Amino acid sequence: MTALIYCPFPDGESAESVGATLLDEGLIGCINIGAGIVSLFSWDGERGSGEETPALIKTDARLLERAMARLEALHPYDTPAIVGWPCQASKGTQEWLGGLEGEPE
Amino acid sequence: MTALIYCPFPDGESAESVGATLLDEGLIGCINIGAGIVSLFSWDGERGSGEETPALIKTDARLLERAMARLEALHPYDTPAIVGWPCQASKGTQEWLGGLEGEPE
Amino acid sequence: MTALIYCPFPDGESAESVGATLLDEGLIGCINIGAGIVSLFSWDGERGSGEETPALIKTDARLLERAMARLEALHPYDTPAIVGWPCQASKGTQEWLGGLEGEPE
Repeated sequence: MTALIYCPFPDGESAESVGATLLDEGLIGCINIGAGIVSLFSWDGERGSGEETPALIKTDARLLERAMARLEALHPYDTPAIVGWPCQASKGTQEWLGGLEGEPE
Repeated sequence: MTALIYCPFPDGESAESVGATLLDEGLIGCINIGAGIVSLFSWDGERGSGEETPALIKTDARLLERAMARLEALHPYDTPAIVGWPCQASKGTQEWLGGLEGEPE
Repeated sequence: MTALIYCPFPDGESAESVGATLLDEGLIGCINIGAGIVSLFSWDGERGSGEETPALIKTDARLLERAMARLEALHPYDTPAIVGWPCQASKGTQEWLGGLEGEPE
């Protein structure tokens, strides 16, 4: 099984930088960084809004938890919103992401 | 567990308005409203296309069904396309969305 | 159950063309083609980056594997990145996508 992680960033630069580190560490196979989004949210009983940059990250299901934990540590926000879920995939995609090793912990 | 809901809107204004109501009612923690998309679809045996505004909505898995039903009622389309799925999440995200109560039904 | 498929394309034209064929063949109900994304990836031990066009495709869970296999065959890349996952859906969306037949194999 493969997996997707969805996580907004404050901007494209931080998404690229964190994505590059996760790629270096073999925890993900790809990060897709999207066009700007408008976010409305509630946090600690307060309402807020802002502009963010969305990222969709592809990995293998066996690395999902490790990749999300490392992403949380690298992310510029104190408490980034990170969600992830297992996915089926086409044959070629499974082979590609199935080859991810992740550096020894 | 947390959950994501994906739902296109006719425009950003309606996405923000419906998102604000769902936030007021404590059914979601955040709505991310994206840049315009092109949609090709088949509906009632007819083919169509149009421009829409995508929204990704974060909630807790416990509130997923309620949030989708309320979104369907609030949405400007008669039959909006609403899909949702449970997700794993980083520790901070689980605590944030786990605190959602949703107004008493 | 319904399902979503996520798959980047090299450009909007190829996304529309492949999406139209999948609609013709009754394998999907809708394709949402997004604004450009920046992709950073590792492939065959090499790092790369590029600009792509993201597509989110809605179908019924029963057709997910067939739709992904057909998408892989139609896609302009040799090895496209295709992931898909089952979803819950609002009542109207389930009825709409539940009506998809898919041409006889």
